[in-house]
Amino acid sequence: MTGFVSFVGSGPGDPEMLTLKAVDRLKRADAVLFDDLSSGPILEHARAGADLVGVGKRAGRPSPKQDHVSRLLVDYALTGQRIVRLKSGDSGIFGRLEEELTALKAAGIPYEIIPGVPSAVAAAAAAGIPLTRRMTARRVQFVTGHDARGVLPEDLNLDALADATASTVVFMGKGTFPLLLDALVARGLPEDTPAVLAEEVSGPGQQITRTTVRALADQLGREKGTKPALILYGPLAEP
Amino acid sequence: MTGFVSFVGSGPGDPEMLTLKAVDRLKRADAVLFDDLSSGPILEHARAGADLVGVGKRAGRPSPKQDHVSRLLVDYALTGQRIVRLKSGDSGIFGRLEEELTALKAAGIPYEIIPGVPSAVAAAAAAGIPLTRRMTARRVQFVTGHDARGVLPEDLNLDALADATASTVVFMGKGTFPLLLDALVARGLPEDTPAVLAEEVSGPGQQITRTTVRALADQLGREKGTKPALILYGPLAEP
Repeated sequence: MTGFVSFVGSGPGDPEMLTLKAVDRLKRADAVLFDDLSSGPILEHARAGADLVGVGKRAGRPSPKQDHVSRLLVDYALTGQRIVRLKSGDSGIFGRLEEELTALKAAGIPYEIIPGVPSAVAAAAAAGIPLTRRMTARRVQFVTGHDARGVLPEDLNLDALADATASTVVFMGKGTFPLLLDALVARGLPEDTPAVLAEEVSGPGQQITRTTVRALADQLGREKGTKPALILYGPLAEP
Repeated sequence: MTGFVSFVGSGPGDPEMLTLKAVDRLKRADAVLFDDLSSGPILEHARAGADLVGVGKRAGRPSPKQDHVSRLLVDYALTGQRIVRLKSGDSGIFGRLEEELTALKAAGIPYEIIPGVPSAVAAAAAAGIPLTRRMTARRVQFVTGHDARGVLPEDLNLDALADATASTVVFMGKGTFPLLLDALVARGLPEDTPAVLAEEVSGPGQQITRTTVRALADQLGREKGTKPALILYGPLAEP
């Protein structure tokens, strides 16, 4: 007897940004394994009696290790239950989905992937900014600001990221942005490139700050704050 | 008396991939202006009696010009109605959102932007592929394969797109991919880089084809087909 796992992207946090399919899977789940950013009111869609298991990772707090999460997911599924693995945003974008998929495949457990609204897309909508523009922003890119050790990855394609004609969104980048910006400016990114700091996107504490990449790096060098945040930069002026 | 416009991303086409917020806005709309890829069952969420106005643009068919769409949107809103402007995927990604925002701002009409599941994200989920991976795919990028004239844009950042360590999704690129690939290979993209052709994502005719960039370019050079499609390439092997 083998269970079934639905990887479900919960969207950025606002429970109204769940898809109908995500709600359906939550209603039918025997157990929901959720991250910190996909908790709270989102979980009210689960049926009464379903197991709700927090496996959240969040900067600055102790949290279960990824291999523990994968093992827990496999163990739940092996009991024959319907499992929802809820991840904030879209699970395929900086959600460490591949590690959990690998664990399920090794255990022979079937699964499906239900896409969600990526937090980067919700951040741009909240700021009133189209991520692409017909003549002036033909490329949009998402990148992570820290690697498994929590520092700036050494193998980033800095030339691609220094392109001021692309819209760039940096995930988990508040801590390393000052260092990243120095490298980007050395490769030609203008210091007055428009930037947006989008904190707690779609949540009750949402805050959208319009600035420039240099002013933002200076600000984050002084005070990073604790809210989860995305950094956007590029041709981001409001239309 | 001024109306209000909700730009709503409908997701890739499957009506179950609408968000709860999108459904709410459809239910409350007096008029829905929709594109070809956000039609069909999605529109059944609109209330009986709402105006449903197709303003679709689709490759190879005559369609309303963008400035006509913007004018129509303004005219509807000026009658004081609640309008939903429904765009497939997420409206901020290759949806020409900025042109319609500019028209509304010029007319003093208030609006909101409701994000949606981008078709690129849904395509990756359908193919079982995480767009990012912790050690091997730290960057994901979306790019358009044709400009306003329907040809390959001249100002693409080819070095950024030739990076085989990034996951790349090309929108509207079936016609120009053979030409694009030649330019990318000249800049170092290996011809055996994994590629996926994702046609009619989340719709009844969905087809996912796993191939390589060279084989895909050869195939599209012979026969492009008529289905809307996305091209993915990069470190896309299934986990």
